[in-house]
Amino acid sequence: MGGYKIAVLPGDGIGPEVVAEAVKVLGVVGKKFGHTFDLRYADFGGAAIDSSGSPFPPETEITCMNADAVLFGAVGGPKWDSLDPAIRPEKGLLALRKAAGAFANLRPAKLFPELADACYLRPDIVANGIDIMVVRELIGDVYFGEPSGIEVRDGERVGFSNMIYREHEIRRVARVAFETAMKRNKKLCSVDKANVLAVSRLWREVVTEVSKEYPEVELSYMYVDNAAMQLVRNPAAFDVIVTGNLFGDILSDEAAAITGSIGMLPSASVGGPDTPGLYEPVHGSAPDIAGQNLANPVATILSLAMLLRYSLGLAAEADAVEAAVADVLAAGYRTGDIFREGMKRVGCSEMGQLIADRV
Amino acid sequence: MGGYKIAVLPGDGIGPEVVAEAVKVLGVVGKKFGHTFDLRYADFGGAAIDSSGSPFPPETEITCMNADAVLFGAVGGPKWDSLDPAIRPEKGLLALRKAAGAFANLRPAKLFPELADACYLRPDIVANGIDIMVVRELIGDVYFGEPSGIEVRDGERVGFSNMIYREHEIRRVARVAFETAMKRNKKLCSVDKANVLAVSRLWREVVTEVSKEYPEVELSYMYVDNAAMQLVRNPAAFDVIVTGNLFGDILSDEAAAITGSIGMLPSASVGGPDTPGLYEPVHGSAPDIAGQNLANPVATILSLAMLLRYSLGLAAEADAVEAAVADVLAAGYRTGDIFREGMKRVGCSEMGQLIADRV
Ligand SMILES: [Mg+2]
Ligand SMILES: [Mg+2]
Repeated sequence: MGGYKIAVLPGDGIGPEVVAEAVKVLGVVGKKFGHTFDLRYADFGGAAIDSSGSPFPPETEITCMNADAVLFGAVGGPKWDSLDPAIRPEKGLLALRKAAGAFANLRPAKLFPELADACYLRPDIVANGIDIMVVRELIGDVYFGEPSGIEVRDGERVGFSNMIYREHEIRRVARVAFETAMKRNKKLCSVDKANVLAVSRLWREVVTEVSKEYPEVELSYMYVDNAAMQLVRNPAAFDVIVTGNLFGDILSDEAAAITGSIGMLPSASVGGPDTPGLYEPVHGSAPDIAGQNLANPVATILSLAMLLRYSLGLAAEADAVEAAVADVLAAGYRTGDIFREGMKRVGCSEMGQLIADRV
Repeated sequence: MGGYKIAVLPGDGIGPEVVAEAVKVLGVVGKKFGHTFDLRYADFGGAAIDSSGSPFPPETEITCMNADAVLFGAVGGPKWDSLDPAIRPEKGLLALRKAAGAFANLRPAKLFPELADACYLRPDIVANGIDIMVVRELIGDVYFGEPSGIEVRDGERVGFSNMIYREHEIRRVARVAFETAMKRNKKLCSVDKANVLAVSRLWREVVTEVSKEYPEVELSYMYVDNAAMQLVRNPAAFDVIVTGNLFGDILSDEAAAITGSIGMLPSASVGGPDTPGLYEPVHGSAPDIAGQNLANPVATILSLAMLLRYSLGLAAEADAVEAAVADVLAAGYRTGDIFREGMKRVGCSEMGQLIADRV
């Protein structure tokens, strides 16, 4: 058999280093579980601008669209900051998400007990654990709604952006969220502002309709301002959150921040059954430490675990990768960004090898 | 002279108790500083529904509009929850804000060092202090933008709410924020999502224009998702924040939550020079503890301090009230909601008297 096809986009800055470690781990998964992973590397971001003039060249798009999943590192850096915004590295990411129809962004905010010191919350709150999955709608809402613009009306400037959702956009992301909840603790909280916004009333209606297909999932609702409070007061109360693009942007970043270890957090962006899921660390390309074996590869390795779980359906393999990461942390190994007195400091490649050895 | 005219709306639940303590404090301020405060009580909220059928009856509106400022407690309770939404107690608040043209909501999130234990953040972050003033635009944005609704298009339901700001709406709230910054540390952070939203690009443009009138104020900009992160990571970096209605709703509640003492937080809603400012505690009517002398009157007493400062221009008097609150906390007195082992537990009226005695 041909095995699983994975497009690999190392990108810029620390991207190539952290992706190399994820690939190392993937190699061990393949051997241990008897899978063949067919890796197809492609240029992306600044690296692609340098080689072809576009951050997401047609060959890269073809490679991605023919793959079962896409793993990528990070894009951007000072080298490309002065370019025309239309061909900046970040535009490649938007183009890739659009090509893949990636409408659901899965953003776990999980605190490893070994890194509890780094958490920004009070120790007695941290002791209850943080393990939240934010499912954020990614290609609709006020970020893309029309009409949008700035124009002069009655002699003054007026700015407007349309916060809009169509029924099918809500339904499909709600299904992803309910499926995610089924794989976790069957608890889902839908966040909106239905007491004020018409668009949120439709959101709540459609989520409630979809809930009929998932009678085992306990569905609750929360207003976005209250959710921003409760994430700080009692994050252990949350399991899966589903929300729109804007609210999800804010809450997924807030949830990530409270863990105190944003360098550890993976993400997934998934679309329809016929398009590849996209997997990437939440952190950026960190050009200041690129090429020095200083980067933390854990977020990318955990992104690989999400890829195995969500795009390839390999749950046991994903569990093995996540357990290996936890083991290495428990053994006291730390890259510089999460280093604390008394721990063993390692570089990017050592961290990757340690995790690979424990899969 | 006739003195300062203050409309007093005790409202429902614990409202009358906490307002009574603020009035006690105001009496001492009057004596000590030689002012006459002409208090005009009026029915509001559920109490007004019971007496007149409306949460904001015309006589109450007249009393408020003829006053220099309005002090109110809280509205709502289970007694009125089953009423038609159009005449619910909360509607009275919206009608009052509208009548007063209260376009700027000032929401301080301040941590008293004595209550640092209650803060939800890590002690080393708390040690840097939290003293943030969120200036939230209150009567525009997507909460009131038209068109808004739910309708069927191309065979499916579509929900939409217009995120819209007119130049003058941004300009007037920006001025309130710059004036507030001038009275504090001359640092203002404008929060928007200008990298994505057209309405935010206009927001940023107009705030930048207004900044020319306040060359002493150091203006910075932050995206809303980043602000949600930074409030948790490093709240001491913020002084005054200005933002729109939706972002302000989320961020003011998040900032309040991190202090851990929402029962301590006051608020002000101010409009034009010819309309009264509205002052109220952030907490609700807490019907479960109403009438038992258990409520914490501090948020209402601090709202009175804001009233003295912002509507009457009595800064020394406001300082005296705030210092009295700090003194009482430093002396170890606590109502039940903020009680800790080793402190002296007091009721609502004792707390008010202790503060009044120290003005
Ligand atoms: Mg974000
Ligand atoms: Mg709110």
